[in-house]
Amino acid sequence: MMKNSGKTIVLAFGGNAITREGQKGTFPEQLANIEVSCRDVVGLARAGYRLAITHGNGPQVGSLLIKNELAKDVVPPMPLDVCVANTQGSLGFGIQQTLQNMFTKAGVHRETAAIITRTEVDPHDEAFSRPTKPVGPFFSQEEARELMAEKGYAMREDSGRGWRRVVPSPRPLAILEKQVIKRLVEDAVIVVAVGGGGIPVVSGPEGYSGVEAVIDKDLAAQRLALDIGADMLAILTGVPVVYLDFRKPAQRALERLTASAARKLLGAGQFPPGSMGPKIEAAAGFVEQSGGTAVITDFATLHAALDGRGGTMIVSG
Amino acid sequence: MMKNSGKTIVLAFGGNAITREGQKGTFPEQLANIEVSCRDVVGLARAGYRLAITHGNGPQVGSLLIKNELAKDVVPPMPLDVCVANTQGSLGFGIQQTLQNMFTKAGVHRETAAIITRTEVDPHDEAFSRPTKPVGPFFSQEEARELMAEKGYAMREDSGRGWRRVVPSPRPLAILEKQVIKRLVEDAVIVVAVGGGGIPVVSGPEGYSGVEAVIDKDLAAQRLALDIGADMLAILTGVPVVYLDFRKPAQRALERLTASAARKLLGAGQFPPGSMGPKIEAAAGFVEQSGGTAVITDFATLHAALDGRGGTMIVSG
Repeated sequence: MMKNSGKTIVLAFGGNAITREGQKGTFPEQLANIEVSCRDVVGLARAGYRLAITHGNGPQVGSLLIKNELAKDVVPPMPLDVCVANTQGSLGFGIQQTLQNMFTKAGVHRETAAIITRTEVDPHDEAFSRPTKPVGPFFSQEEARELMAEKGYAMREDSGRGWRRVVPSPRPLAILEKQVIKRLVEDAVIVVAVGGGGIPVVSGPEGYSGVEAVIDKDLAAQRLALDIGADMLAILTGVPVVYLDFRKPAQRALERLTASAARKLLGAGQFPPGSMGPKIEAAAGFVEQSGGTAVITDFATLHAALDGRGGTMIVSG
Repeated sequence: MMKNSGKTIVLAFGGNAITREGQKGTFPEQLANIEVSCRDVVGLARAGYRLAITHGNGPQVGSLLIKNELAKDVVPPMPLDVCVANTQGSLGFGIQQTLQNMFTKAGVHRETAAIITRTEVDPHDEAFSRPTKPVGPFFSQEEARELMAEKGYAMREDSGRGWRRVVPSPRPLAILEKQVIKRLVEDAVIVVAVGGGGIPVVSGPEGYSGVEAVIDKDLAAQRLALDIGADMLAILTGVPVVYLDFRKPAQRALERLTASAARKLLGAGQFPPGSMGPKIEAAAGFVEQSGGTAVITDFATLHAALDGRGGTMIVSG
């Protein structure tokens, strides 16, 4: 048994957990990627860790939005929050089933469950007046003009590739299914939840309702880790450790840093907004608010990193 | 408190719970229908019943299959089992959120959860050699010929409206997530599960894998009720009671019948295969195998029917 065994860890799967560049995105491809991503999870399950797994859904929700558009004259398009829910269904199924099959082969006796999860956001979040996150298909300028006029979409020209809808990316306030997730995780069930950052909902006089937005998956994983009282947040990405001066001559690996040091490096522009930035922010925020620790690493290093042999650990201080 | 309060009931929502004839099938329409369907559920939740809700997904999975087809040159089509998983996500979200909002308004304190659910079927089920269930879009005879040759689809001409794919409808053997569902239901969480009859999977040397099939939603609800040890199975449909000689001059309501009487009437052709037949079969099978009782009624009569004031009750004997 390892030193952290029995602890509760939120594993935040990155985009490459399910889809790899250059692939078409068929379901068998997704399952094969998930199997590679889950290798270390089998050992963690055997060692007795309590685990919740969150994941992204970018390519999958993108495909559904393209289908919406191409079929719009025949079947009603579904709003973005419903498409996120759709991907929680298919990816929850894919991750859960792959993991359970790997457990069976390895003789590991752990149950799994995939929970449809809503993430509450603030309807007054400033993101709603400043949509930034591109989603779905590319359009011509003419089509984009029509969509902006007819549907009130915010749209942007995207690096010469055409026009694309941009949606708000508000901060996650709470994971609405946290009690159910917590109970199952405490009961040793390995829970897949908060897929795609969660289905974005706001509270109003009639209760909760879905909104067209996309929640950052790393911040949503942080929110889940805080909401269920996890001991650790492990953010899985394409590199085994976080680097300073990434891809520059002076590049060097960060084995361990405090949350305040992480904040300083973030402020100094060391981590790009679209990739490592949100991961560092999510990790530092979890450590600051919970006193727990966070790890950023890749799938192959996960198990070792949790034992302090690899990855980048972010600790209190 | 009512006499059954505290008992565990599986509520099997019929097709009209989510989609009504003549509607386009937009998500707001679906939510409005769900709200009507859930009215009596609020009272049952308040009275302390333990509840699991299953539901159909015919129109929703049909829309996804149409989108698959229209977008196939741009994004990879998803297999039928994945489309079922997609609908479990969106409909689980819609039912759970609607119900939770209704609870809040009514001052009822009950949690809800939607669980992605797989239903195991036998790979040697005779349904696989005799596909009968039409799904997805209509095609011309020429297109149908191509699909049969290229993809090995079974296809049939459908009442002069064109050619349609037919898929197997195997019998449900087990609800794979039964332990998790049972635990949550016992813990007073109202669980939405087994959507669309569950994601059909078969067991093989590599573990479980999805198959292209559709499982009858009433038989899947029966399987869930047996698997979690429910006291009652309530099948919700468009009529308040089951009728003998339905829509004939001698039509009369059945208030109460034994499972063996139900079997006899089924054998005598009283209940058509596509509509009341599977409901009677699911109800009788549950009663025979569990010793519990089953109710067939509509949404407006549900609460009264559970108290024995309306609906058709199927009992042991």
